[in-house]
Amino acid sequence: MSSYADRLSALREQLKHDRLDGFVVPLTDEHMSEYVGAYAQRLGWLTGFQGSAGTAAVLPQEAAIFTDGRYTLQVRQQVSGDHWAYVAVPATSVAGWLGEHVSDGGRIGYDPWLHTRAWVEEARKALAENGAELVAVERNPIDAVWADRPAPSPDTLAVQSDAHSGKSSAAKRAEIADWLNERKADAVVLSALDSIAWAFNIRGTDVSHTPVALAYAIVNSDGTADLFVAGEKMTDAVAQHLGNAIRVHERSAFAPALEALKGKRVAADPERAVAAIFDSLDAGGAKILQLRDPVVLAKALKNPVEIAGHRAAQARDGAALSRFLRWFEATAPQGGLTELSCEERLEAFRRETGVLKDLSFSTISATGPHGAIPHYKATEESNLPVERGQLYLVDSGGQYADGTTDVTRVMPVGEPTREMRDRFTRVLKGHIAIATATFPAGTTGAQLDGFARRPLWEVGLDYAHGTGHGVGSYLSVHEGPQRIAQPFYPGGQALEPLRVGMFLSNEPGYYKAGDFGIRIENLVLVIEKDIPGAEQTMLGFETLTFAPIERTLIESSLLSAEERTWLNAYHAQVLAILSPQLEGEDLAWLEAKCAEI
Amino acid sequence: MSSYADRLSALREQLKHDRLDGFVVPLTDEHMSEYVGAYAQRLGWLTGFQGSAGTAAVLPQEAAIFTDGRYTLQVRQQVSGDHWAYVAVPATSVAGWLGEHVSDGGRIGYDPWLHTRAWVEEARKALAENGAELVAVERNPIDAVWADRPAPSPDTLAVQSDAHSGKSSAAKRAEIADWLNERKADAVVLSALDSIAWAFNIRGTDVSHTPVALAYAIVNSDGTADLFVAGEKMTDAVAQHLGNAIRVHERSAFAPALEALKGKRVAADPERAVAAIFDSLDAGGAKILQLRDPVVLAKALKNPVEIAGHRAAQARDGAALSRFLRWFEATAPQGGLTELSCEERLEAFRRETGVLKDLSFSTISATGPHGAIPHYKATEESNLPVERGQLYLVDSGGQYADGTTDVTRVMPVGEPTREMRDRFTRVLKGHIAIATATFPAGTTGAQLDGFARRPLWEVGLDYAHGTGHGVGSYLSVHEGPQRIAQPFYPGGQALEPLRVGMFLSNEPGYYKAGDFGIRIENLVLVIEKDIPGAEQTMLGFETLTFAPIERTLIESSLLSAEERTWLNAYHAQVLAILSPQLEGEDLAWLEAKCAEI
Repeated sequence: MSSYADRLSALREQLKHDRLDGFVVPLTDEHMSEYVGAYAQRLGWLTGFQGSAGTAAVLPQEAAIFTDGRYTLQVRQQVSGDHWAYVAVPATSVAGWLGEHVSDGGRIGYDPWLHTRAWVEEARKALAENGAELVAVERNPIDAVWADRPAPSPDTLAVQSDAHSGKSSAAKRAEIADWLNERKADAVVLSALDSIAWAFNIRGTDVSHTPVALAYAIVNSDGTADLFVAGEKMTDAVAQHLGNAIRVHERSAFAPALEALKGKRVAADPERAVAAIFDSLDAGGAKILQLRDPVVLAKALKNPVEIAGHRAAQARDGAALSRFLRWFEATAPQGGLTELSCEERLEAFRRETGVLKDLSFSTISATGPHGAIPHYKATEESNLPVERGQLYLVDSGGQYADGTTDVTRVMPVGEPTREMRDRFTRVLKGHIAIATATFPAGTTGAQLDGFARRPLWEVGLDYAHGTGHGVGSYLSVHEGPQRIAQPFYPGGQALEPLRVGMFLSNEPGYYKAGDFGIRIENLVLVIEKDIPGAEQTMLGFETLTFAPIERTLIESSLLSAEERTWLNAYHAQVLAILSPQLEGEDLAWLEAKCAEI
Repeated sequence: MSSYADRLSALREQLKHDRLDGFVVPLTDEHMSEYVGAYAQRLGWLTGFQGSAGTAAVLPQEAAIFTDGRYTLQVRQQVSGDHWAYVAVPATSVAGWLGEHVSDGGRIGYDPWLHTRAWVEEARKALAENGAELVAVERNPIDAVWADRPAPSPDTLAVQSDAHSGKSSAAKRAEIADWLNERKADAVVLSALDSIAWAFNIRGTDVSHTPVALAYAIVNSDGTADLFVAGEKMTDAVAQHLGNAIRVHERSAFAPALEALKGKRVAADPERAVAAIFDSLDAGGAKILQLRDPVVLAKALKNPVEIAGHRAAQARDGAALSRFLRWFEATAPQGGLTELSCEERLEAFRRETGVLKDLSFSTISATGPHGAIPHYKATEESNLPVERGQLYLVDSGGQYADGTTDVTRVMPVGEPTREMRDRFTRVLKGHIAIATATFPAGTTGAQLDGFARRPLWEVGLDYAHGTGHGVGSYLSVHEGPQRIAQPFYPGGQALEPLRVGMFLSNEPGYYKAGDFGIRIENLVLVIEKDIPGAEQTMLGFETLTFAPIERTLIESSLLSAEERTWLNAYHAQVLAILSPQLEGEDLAWLEAKCAEI
């Protein structure tokens, strides 16, 4: 395996060969995915960076890696400071940095399949101000020098049955066709992988933890569609499922198909479709309507079948987690556990359900100081033993055909300190404030976020992440368009009104650097609340995740009567839902954990 | 006086003469003011509309008036449906409506001194899509047909002494010069009247309730400035105050001065400067920097002298209001009072202070059902008698040389109903939730707004206005850039971080249409909170308005222990601050009103 220094040199040679004075390497793939397949992990290959957000820029003499506050420490551990300058975004933008570092007349390359058009325009402008030019490459120069680059996954597609999806692909495409006709549009380009999976009721295994397949699609205003996917992924069952209204093509036929939409009114999503898609539409002479992918909202509004499936998945997942928590409580104080051994044990409990498809993300199994790193991932190098006096935080979830779960619990090892109990209780108060919130239709997550923080704010504390994200149905564990977060949280999704049928996480936390981390996360469903005398439609949340919240960490004198009522009712529900699946010591443990406080 | 029908006909004749097929009439003046002088009330003259936000569009056969939800009823009462179509914004935009109603080749006029450039661009685009053209007029056609149009006020300027402003104009201009130099800019255009009043420490009486004078200004990077103001407004004292570093010109010299800034880097605020200013800068060849007027934030961060002055003004104003409330409570149940007589009595109490300069806005004196109209203004026609069983709401404020006040109180006449007490108490709980909030530096008003609404939301209620607005120092009672409101509240100011030294109102409410209105409004100051163990800078509010909150309207069983503690502490402060100014029955009344609950 070549060294990172060799890779950087090879890329610079290739750039010289391609007559480029620089190149920009984002983390994403052609689908603007959050998680990307191995074949597309160009940033990781080039730099060693393993975080979930970052960009690199390579110039003849300089190279920089751009990360946000979450990865300030991690980037320094994973990426060599000998070859790379660490630059913090958003304080400095990639475009701004390039503008300042390129020389007059310089040609900076970018892969138009890996950037939004907005990014291209901003970068082009910043470069132009300094006399440099932004140039779209035909072939990504990293692919030319990445000798052992993995091929895209050849895994076959799977059908997501109507029994799980609750709506046939034909019905979904009919809704998309209605949406197109309302806008006098002829077609819409879908490039987000979860949008395609939802619209066609298909799933794949091309990306870790998210059951999607690499594909593009064009849905037409008559409800027919063109699906662009590797032929090797097709099976007879899938072909039969897709039927005659869906024409299947190779992925390489996608750009030509866009160019063939001459004179058509075609919708494409400027946040989700890459610049190359817009370039192809422009080149072919289509009239582009820049609109949000219509699947984004449709997919977020879960139907009754999806909600019922989610309940079943949650009950199953909660029982597996509870068995783990009992095991942990009994085992950890004796010593010998590590972050990785705990992570494996939890996955084993989930696998014992017999229906686990995948984890929904890399488990965060973090003890003591590692708990204070919200996106921690234990590795062989970082793996800490679980020790007395620590708090152990586990944030995990499963992918099941009927639903996607995501839950965080914290357990003390031995006696928690007074400070730990105080902080845990404040986080719990914030969690309950969201769980019990009532709000008018039209309210956004940004308007609720403060409810979760107020108990921490009162003593001068806070947490540096959002309070809740959307969740898919056997799809991505992070799904838009909704969010509970500060108004300026990246992506701006906290300004989307919450609507009945949306799934969200409710996960306030508190992190004491170098010491411990706390997060209490349940998934919730947005529901309409029937309030006598209400003057408008009022919404609220129904909690869908069931696992006990550790009572020895709760300082009950800090809870109001209403908060105590919520907690006791929640635990009664946990017991009612999980006890049929548990027996013996597990059941006795759960009964004790769910007793009234 | 001509009829509104005649005025519309005359305008259409003038448009024909000017070879225009239509014209747009906004409510604002050349300074994008919220309140405008009589000379600029073109929309009111043309249509009869008296609301604070609206626009008219006149075509040869059609005419429309555009208002938002606040004025749905009022516009129908004040503007004739025989001649005007009522159009609701933002559902339909003026530009969108014009685009749909103009004919191909049509020429629609606009006065470039009365619109932002963003509006012009949007309207131009919408018209162009329909083959019509947007045309800047040299002279406003309304002015040509408005025979008895008032002249701009000839009132002289007044000096705002350093003893009240806390900072000399030279020091303020030095700060503006620093801001310019940081941006490598040569000059900034100031056109907002309160920005000019603040920067030059001058006041005027050209606009009701806001002590500003019609003027423009250019501040240069050396701290010198050009002030454009009618010569008749100057006095020797003002000339001496302004000194040699400020060159005074007639207003008519402003546009030529902008055109003379050839090659200079000039900052102008796209939200506050009208299109004509940008057009003049462009015509002259200046390099325009589109930046927020630097005075907007500087003016919002009150200095210690302004804060001390505000405290004095509030103590004085609170005593006057308390005397009114005592008088009201003693007099109203006997009958004979009206909304207008109460309004006059309250103004008389404020005038008895001997230092009242003006009211800070038209008093909202509203009894019974009128209280449910948040922006109600009693007139001879609407004037209701104050009757037993009603709630009486009074929202009022004074302009004093040391501060601007704004306060709302509600009083029952006779026995309030259980519903009134429940609603009042919920509004009070929301008010207390804001008053006691603690939040990290960087928090915006949008993140706090929900705290004020939650007690109402819980029972399916809400209020259709923001929770708080900024307030000036002997300037505008509504002042940016900060606000406590929903994220999408008009103007977007709720997304501005709250900073130490800002004044805001705290005014949740509840309105039962046709029955009663409730609002509890105090002004607050953003302060830093010293919290032991805090991990970051924490902010909060200090309440600055002092007048009793009516105890017979409070259902104390709904208050938490913390809320009761706040209320009792507040009333103890009210008594301590106001009692030295009161005597006899007034003092006895206040003592009773401020007793512990």
